[in-house]
Amino acid sequence: MLKEAPKPAIGPGDVLIRVRAAGICGTDVHIYDWDRWSQNRIRPPLIIGHEFVGEIVEIGQNVRHVKPGQRVSAEGHIGCGHCEFCRTGQAHICNDVRIIGVDRDGCFAEYISIEAGNLWPVPDVIPDHLAAVFDPLGNAMHTVMAEPVAGKSILITGAGTIGLFAVAIAHYAGAATIMVIEPNAFKRGLASEVGADVLLDPGTEGLEQEVLDRTDGLGPQVLLEMSGNPNAINQGFRLLRNGGCACLLGIPPDKVTLDLAKDIIFKGVTIRAINGRRMFDTWYQSQNFLFAEQQRVERLVTHRLPFEQYERGFELLKNGTAVKVVLELTASEG
Amino acid sequence: MLKEAPKPAIGPGDVLIRVRAAGICGTDVHIYDWDRWSQNRIRPPLIIGHEFVGEIVEIGQNVRHVKPGQRVSAEGHIGCGHCEFCRTGQAHICNDVRIIGVDRDGCFAEYISIEAGNLWPVPDVIPDHLAAVFDPLGNAMHTVMAEPVAGKSILITGAGTIGLFAVAIAHYAGAATIMVIEPNAFKRGLASEVGADVLLDPGTEGLEQEVLDRTDGLGPQVLLEMSGNPNAINQGFRLLRNGGCACLLGIPPDKVTLDLAKDIIFKGVTIRAINGRRMFDTWYQSQNFLFAEQQRVERLVTHRLPFEQYERGFELLKNGTAVKVVLELTASEG
Amino acid sequence: MLKEAPKPAIGPGDVLIRVRAAGICGTDVHIYDWDRWSQNRIRPPLIIGHEFVGEIVEIGQNVRHVKPGQRVSAEGHIGCGHCEFCRTGQAHICNDVRIIGVDRDGCFAEYISIEAGNLWPVPDVIPDHLAAVFDPLGNAMHTVMAEPVAGKSILITGAGTIGLFAVAIAHYAGAATIMVIEPNAFKRGLASEVGADVLLDPGTEGLEQEVLDRTDGLGPQVLLEMSGNPNAINQGFRLLRNGGCACLLGIPPDKVTLDLAKDIIFKGVTIRAINGRRMFDTWYQSQNFLFAEQQRVERLVTHRLPFEQYERGFELLKNGTAVKVVLELTASEG
Amino acid sequence: MLKEAPKPAIGPGDVLIRVRAAGICGTDVHIYDWDRWSQNRIRPPLIIGHEFVGEIVEIGQNVRHVKPGQRVSAEGHIGCGHCEFCRTGQAHICNDVRIIGVDRDGCFAEYISIEAGNLWPVPDVIPDHLAAVFDPLGNAMHTVMAEPVAGKSILITGAGTIGLFAVAIAHYAGAATIMVIEPNAFKRGLASEVGADVLLDPGTEGLEQEVLDRTDGLGPQVLLEMSGNPNAINQGFRLLRNGGCACLLGIPPDKVTLDLAKDIIFKGVTIRAINGRRMFDTWYQSQNFLFAEQQRVERLVTHRLPFEQYERGFELLKNGTAVKVVLELTASEG
Repeated sequence: MLKEAPKPAIGPGDVLIRVRAAGICGTDVHIYDWDRWSQNRIRPPLIIGHEFVGEIVEIGQNVRHVKPGQRVSAEGHIGCGHCEFCRTGQAHICNDVRIIGVDRDGCFAEYISIEAGNLWPVPDVIPDHLAAVFDPLGNAMHTVMAEPVAGKSILITGAGTIGLFAVAIAHYAGAATIMVIEPNAFKRGLASEVGADVLLDPGTEGLEQEVLDRTDGLGPQVLLEMSGNPNAINQGFRLLRNGGCACLLGIPPDKVTLDLAKDIIFKGVTIRAINGRRMFDTWYQSQNFLFAEQQRVERLVTHRLPFEQYERGFELLKNGTAVKVVLELTASEG
Repeated sequence: MLKEAPKPAIGPGDVLIRVRAAGICGTDVHIYDWDRWSQNRIRPPLIIGHEFVGEIVEIGQNVRHVKPGQRVSAEGHIGCGHCEFCRTGQAHICNDVRIIGVDRDGCFAEYISIEAGNLWPVPDVIPDHLAAVFDPLGNAMHTVMAEPVAGKSILITGAGTIGLFAVAIAHYAGAATIMVIEPNAFKRGLASEVGADVLLDPGTEGLEQEVLDRTDGLGPQVLLEMSGNPNAINQGFRLLRNGGCACLLGIPPDKVTLDLAKDIIFKGVTIRAINGRRMFDTWYQSQNFLFAEQQRVERLVTHRLPFEQYERGFELLKNGTAVKVVLELTASEG
Repeated sequence: MLKEAPKPAIGPGDVLIRVRAAGICGTDVHIYDWDRWSQNRIRPPLIIGHEFVGEIVEIGQNVRHVKPGQRVSAEGHIGCGHCEFCRTGQAHICNDVRIIGVDRDGCFAEYISIEAGNLWPVPDVIPDHLAAVFDPLGNAMHTVMAEPVAGKSILITGAGTIGLFAVAIAHYAGAATIMVIEPNAFKRGLASEVGADVLLDPGTEGLEQEVLDRTDGLGPQVLLEMSGNPNAINQGFRLLRNGGCACLLGIPPDKVTLDLAKDIIFKGVTIRAINGRRMFDTWYQSQNFLFAEQQRVERLVTHRLPFEQYERGFELLKNGTAVKVVLELTASEG
Repeated sequence: MLKEAPKPAIGPGDVLIRVRAAGICGTDVHIYDWDRWSQNRIRPPLIIGHEFVGEIVEIGQNVRHVKPGQRVSAEGHIGCGHCEFCRTGQAHICNDVRIIGVDRDGCFAEYISIEAGNLWPVPDVIPDHLAAVFDPLGNAMHTVMAEPVAGKSILITGAGTIGLFAVAIAHYAGAATIMVIEPNAFKRGLASEVGADVLLDPGTEGLEQEVLDRTDGLGPQVLLEMSGNPNAINQGFRLLRNGGCACLLGIPPDKVTLDLAKDIIFKGVTIRAINGRRMFDTWYQSQNFLFAEQQRVERLVTHRLPFEQYERGFELLKNGTAVKVVLELTASEG
């Protein structure tokens, strides 16, 4: 619901940013739909949205190293700054982390205020509609970089936005064979465009045999689980090669039953559970990726809409005909 | 059932070993009881037993580097030798691995024949009843070494034989705090003797709070899951610190339901599933451990019995009053 | 010197291979020139050459899993098979390793005999002149894979054969920026063709500043040292970023003086010294690379000559107008 | 030289600390002696000293999470806070790092002012004279933790203060055999007391053979280089096992000539160069170590002197009869 909100106040260590472009995330769709998860987690009133780029318009008195006029994106996980996690480079899993657009006001607004330490200055060569997606691109980057993929066979379960970014990144990082399981034909098509070698509809007969045929009968060396779907998770582990590695990013809505002995323990696999982005290793990696592969990311920003058409953006995402929708400030607004 | 069996034949790359001492493993108890798993896996007639030390009495024509009279133990996982796993130092997860005493005849016999490449020559300073337990000690070593423990808080769920070996190894490797959850009071007592700092009965009220109290409210940094019990597995993951590591060795008898989102993914943990022993990295580590900590291992070999009292050994294990039972060749047999 | 040699004998675990194609390595050139290193290391008479592909024509009585008629290459480092290195997946650094064409007869001959365990069966899609270079390609792969390069800035000092293979592999594995320092213009040109972004002649003024300019003033994140030249080694370390990683493959002919405090210790860098190829992890990686990037490897096999023109091959390498020269069995010989 | 200095000013993010105890470091001795390094690096007037514990007496207006009266130590490397190193958990190698007592005023004074983010609150159970040595203990911890040592053979070259701390830590972390090369008999004796197994005077004939004899003829698996002495560095690399790891902390005063080919590259070793302490991973590890092994650290604080006897402290260090000298505020000063 669009409404007037006061310009946010900034503390001595904060900056005020005028938002230029913002991506709509699946999480935003959950909140928009006010589903069970949202009802438990969100405390309204709240401005949602956490993927954005904007221009600094004001800085707090203690802020150094950035200045008004600079174009910035920002890490949306705000750690407490003084716990063991924050003091050892793991602020993304701080127990008291606050997420913009979830635990506090976010970026679907004209202005957002945020701690200066969370800013990411954006180089000129990266346009607004790509700079706006550092956050989900970073989720994919964090997942793919959790285990070296060069020269390996990769199975990606789920080609939603982050899954598709993961396809592009795995291809960039030298994956030997990228196999994607995804029910939406439109998204399978995009997966192919950004680097997937094998496209599989989960309903297809003989799917598991095809994965084995493509991997010398041994299964993929790396599983990137991007769906959160319990069947996909189980299928992924069933196919994963002995000694392989599963990186789990997709969030299952309920508990999941696994064949822990057969699919995991006897196989001697490694599992890396992924949350957020590493601060700021992931951001440096994502930026280098954007420099090199701007075209592929461009291909996945399927829709650019003016802010006021946000309802259409949500609808496109809900009916599965969009991947990343970026809302942009129009010239007349600027 | 004790019976006469012919002396095994040896191929050109094998050796024939006269068994001097052999440990009874939980797996052997399962087979002895002929439970569901055994009925599915074992193809009788079979000589069971896979933990042993003995003396080489004969060598095949192609065997080099060992000779009759030498005292040896042996890795009981026999890889195919030519698959991708075997060719990359992962023979323990070879798809065609054959395990002595499970897939082919084992060591509860006067003689065993085995591939020379699987032998482990035993230094004189390690007595028979300790050399006989390289196999389960190696399971524990593989699990503890999967993640550095020095200076960290460790939770071990399940203090059976391998869990107790893991306590001793974690202590040796500099774990800061070792907490053990185990229902059997006798085994908790032994855990304390070999290095555990905190002993917890799973039925105790406030158990989880105690673990948190001992770990600055954050939970243990490393979970060593040795029970295979679904409740223990869930409790372990619930307690595990954000960014922590769970090493899973215990084999659950059925599928396990996990709170994958809350206990694993959001926490950003790593899981290392463990099978067998690394060939032969784990053996070198275990031997160095035996050199340094012989007394603690000694403490866990609770019973040494002559071979013919094997039934008593199985009974002691089944009623929970023994940890490691080693059957020994008596002087009159020798 | 070309001369008649008897067909080699094979032991019970060996195979006899009819050589179809063989690469000439820099090491072969050293021996051909009978330089100081060769005089110390080589015990003539010796058949040199260690990069090849051929067809199995005979197998020893204990050989399984390969058969006459199969096309194979082979790992040329033959470990003793029973030392701590060989038993822990590090046969490439076995103290008693014997290298074909250096410590025993090699492949510049009609036939070579080698242990079956060292064979690498070659898939049909890889032609002879590429299958012949698994060995140097593997050196480059081992070096590049020693440290993840995806999204990182890479400096490669020395674009000889292995350096050029390293360029192609680093590009394949997602390196963000590949900078190459190499005096030979022909080789710099090839570096550019196979993936280098920045080409530098070591004599150029302002070279170090250019490397800094390309890396935000911080220097490259990974140094791949392929020259063995003391000046290049020092320059590489001087430029390497704090916390970066240097992978050293080039062999300096004499001791090297380093500014250990300033260029290495204060910077907190990691150094990975590389020898040979990991058995057989590197071979699997190289094969997957060949499947994906056959064209780039093809570009670096600058000359294919019939065996009898071997002298021309050596001359091309010595005058710096060739990269990889492959000698091939001609149709009339076949 | 003892003189009056004004109480330092504090900025909005700083705290003012009244120093209770301070350790004298080798670096302080260099500056005290005004050697070549000091003349190049130090810009007087400067208060030296960087190892301390004290009590917060005042906090800046932006400081949260600590308060006056709290007892604290502090990390003496102050990163710029906004470069790539600082933003990726590597502030210890920030190019613009400022070190207290070297680049700005230090702790050999009644008061020191420092950024709140560098503080380390000290638990009550750690007494002042041990809390004062977190800094050098952390150097040793960073070095030993750079490579797992459990079950391995370790060679430590140089048993000065940090070398001796490293002995104690390696012992704690399960090193199988700890060998120490050190010319000072007093320090060799202390090495033995805190956990070394083999003590070697560099002048002893047959030293290298003894190291080989203790390591199955293969050499140590890990080298911890703590001397900065070129001969020791070369000897360490010569002895290091193939595939081993050398962690370098000692700072050689000049360039060092190494047999890079024979001692490093052909051996396939890894080198980890160490600077400072990881913030704050190393501090958590050091604190856990202090909880467990207070007695051993106690043994290495050989002298506790009142502040005004600082000259005696420097002399003890210069003549090699002290290890760690801690200067303490006496009761009358408090």
